[in-house]
Amino acid sequence: MSAEFDLIARHFTRPPRRAVLGVGDDCALLPPPAGQQLAVSSDMLVEGRHFVSTVAPERLGHKALAVNLSDLAACGAEPLAFTLALSLPRPDEAFLAGFARGLFGLAEAQGIELVGGDTTAGPLTLCLTVIGLVPTGQALLRSGARAGDDLWVSGCLGDARLALEVLRGTVLLDGAGFEAVRRAMELPQPRVALGLALRGLATSAIDLSDGLVGDLGHVLQRSGVGAAVDVDALPCSAVLAAQAPALRRTCLLAGGDDYEMLFTAPPQRREAVLAAGAAAGVALTRCGRIEAEPGLRLRDAGGPLQAEAFRGFDHFEQ
Amino acid sequence: MSAEFDLIARHFTRPPRRAVLGVGDDCALLPPPAGQQLAVSSDMLVEGRHFVSTVAPERLGHKALAVNLSDLAACGAEPLAFTLALSLPRPDEAFLAGFARGLFGLAEAQGIELVGGDTTAGPLTLCLTVIGLVPTGQALLRSGARAGDDLWVSGCLGDARLALEVLRGTVLLDGAGFEAVRRAMELPQPRVALGLALRGLATSAIDLSDGLVGDLGHVLQRSGVGAAVDVDALPCSAVLAAQAPALRRTCLLAGGDDYEMLFTAPPQRREAVLAAGAAAGVALTRCGRIEAEPGLRLRDAGGPLQAEAFRGFDHFEQ
Repeated sequence: MSAEFDLIARHFTRPPRRAVLGVGDDCALLPPPAGQQLAVSSDMLVEGRHFVSTVAPERLGHKALAVNLSDLAACGAEPLAFTLALSLPRPDEAFLAGFARGLFGLAEAQGIELVGGDTTAGPLTLCLTVIGLVPTGQALLRSGARAGDDLWVSGCLGDARLALEVLRGTVLLDGAGFEAVRRAMELPQPRVALGLALRGLATSAIDLSDGLVGDLGHVLQRSGVGAAVDVDALPCSAVLAAQAPALRRTCLLAGGDDYEMLFTAPPQRREAVLAAGAAAGVALTRCGRIEAEPGLRLRDAGGPLQAEAFRGFDHFEQ
Repeated sequence: MSAEFDLIARHFTRPPRRAVLGVGDDCALLPPPAGQQLAVSSDMLVEGRHFVSTVAPERLGHKALAVNLSDLAACGAEPLAFTLALSLPRPDEAFLAGFARGLFGLAEAQGIELVGGDTTAGPLTLCLTVIGLVPTGQALLRSGARAGDDLWVSGCLGDARLALEVLRGTVLLDGAGFEAVRRAMELPQPRVALGLALRGLATSAIDLSDGLVGDLGHVLQRSGVGAAVDVDALPCSAVLAAQAPALRRTCLLAGGDDYEMLFTAPPQRREAVLAAGAAAGVALTRCGRIEAEPGLRLRDAGGPLQAEAFRGFDHFEQ
């Protein structure tokens, strides 16, 4: 048995659960239940771009799956199965053991099963594809926001970006502060339970991966509407709240890597929305409203802000 | 709109066909028909490892999808949808235009739809995940080979490896010879139609990506059987046939990158197998038989050969 197959077998084989056939044949086989649609999403993570080389392998395993589950959450889909393709410079036992621990820890917590993949030598790169299920017609889309809807966001925003600025050397935090924001960056919690609870309630949803202004822009464009956002209402941690206003705004509006849910719902469903958040164990904050007039209007206590300054994270810049 | 989203939109957006929702939301949504299982497979291709930097982008686009479709073929699955995650050093218009042309050329020919993906900056790496459909219980598996079955292979073996040896500088070919084997390496034809025709006929199947000896080993191990292979019977091109015997054997038995189908079927189904090959437009060659005694026995006109010398391609070696 070659080193490659041996690696796969040792670290990534688990007994199949819902899959008829899991890792080890040419394809995995999965039975799709009647009345459900498949939700499919892929994300690629590249060392030096999406994570730093010093990240703990266990946290990297968690995050690689978390960012993909976040896409299922944003569709209101129930996680079913995923594939993992992994390029790494050499077969590194300690790395793989830690990575698998973090990956399967989250997979088991979320009831999703690894059904196949690929391992090869090359620059450290991870590609996961997740498959979820959603009852036909009930998926949360980006295109359903309507004028008059409330704009909601889950959890806290901006901590991951603040951690990145510390790693870049542009910001200094004390040890406890850095540990807290680093956790947000390295161990994001995909809002799967919230996505399920928002089916039939949210009119549109997206997960925040590229920053609020950029991601909200996708919802507005697809829905053909505009929005007004109260920047002071955006939820942030005590660590981020203690930073200078300009940095805080950048982290909140253009942060990226939040993996929180941004969604819209009619004002008459506010109590139901808050109940959905409570059931999912996630704080929800109302931070603006959808308007018929196209464009994004940002405002804080100091007056209007230019949205253009906070446009989405571009993976070909910096 | 950022450069990243612009890139995706320009090169990779097509109107959805069977997908309810394609590229552009958090997930793609697909309707799975009743009575079918999903077949899922992922492959990652890394520059310098799976392809050379000088490959024509159009051929790379073809090959990236072809090697994934080959996994569906080996399961007897009908192609449904795929995702593409792409890491590239910079947004390169000419590369992407050519890549998309090759990718969609094959996708349209095979009736498979791009439904989502990811684009990022980084070392040139491609990861595709394909989803196919197969009627429940009819998938071709690696585990079904039985003693007495014939061993069959499609097409010609070894040309891709011969082309690689030319690029490595260990072999010299004339221009026409090199063009022919380079085509085999860069434009493999996934045997999707053959896989469909072999449902209910083949007892096991695998696609040849790591070399015949290594891949046959997976079938033997999963099926709990052994095999005898007549090396002189293995199909090869005129270009490979003209090479020295040792090189020819290496290319045929340990070549890798063939993307032909290796499968087993009972001897009483020989005519049906040949008819399936004719219907799919692929030459099929009988090259051995499955035996109860474990192990792989290779033989040519000169006598027995040691199978160990031709074990599978290991992506962490060389």
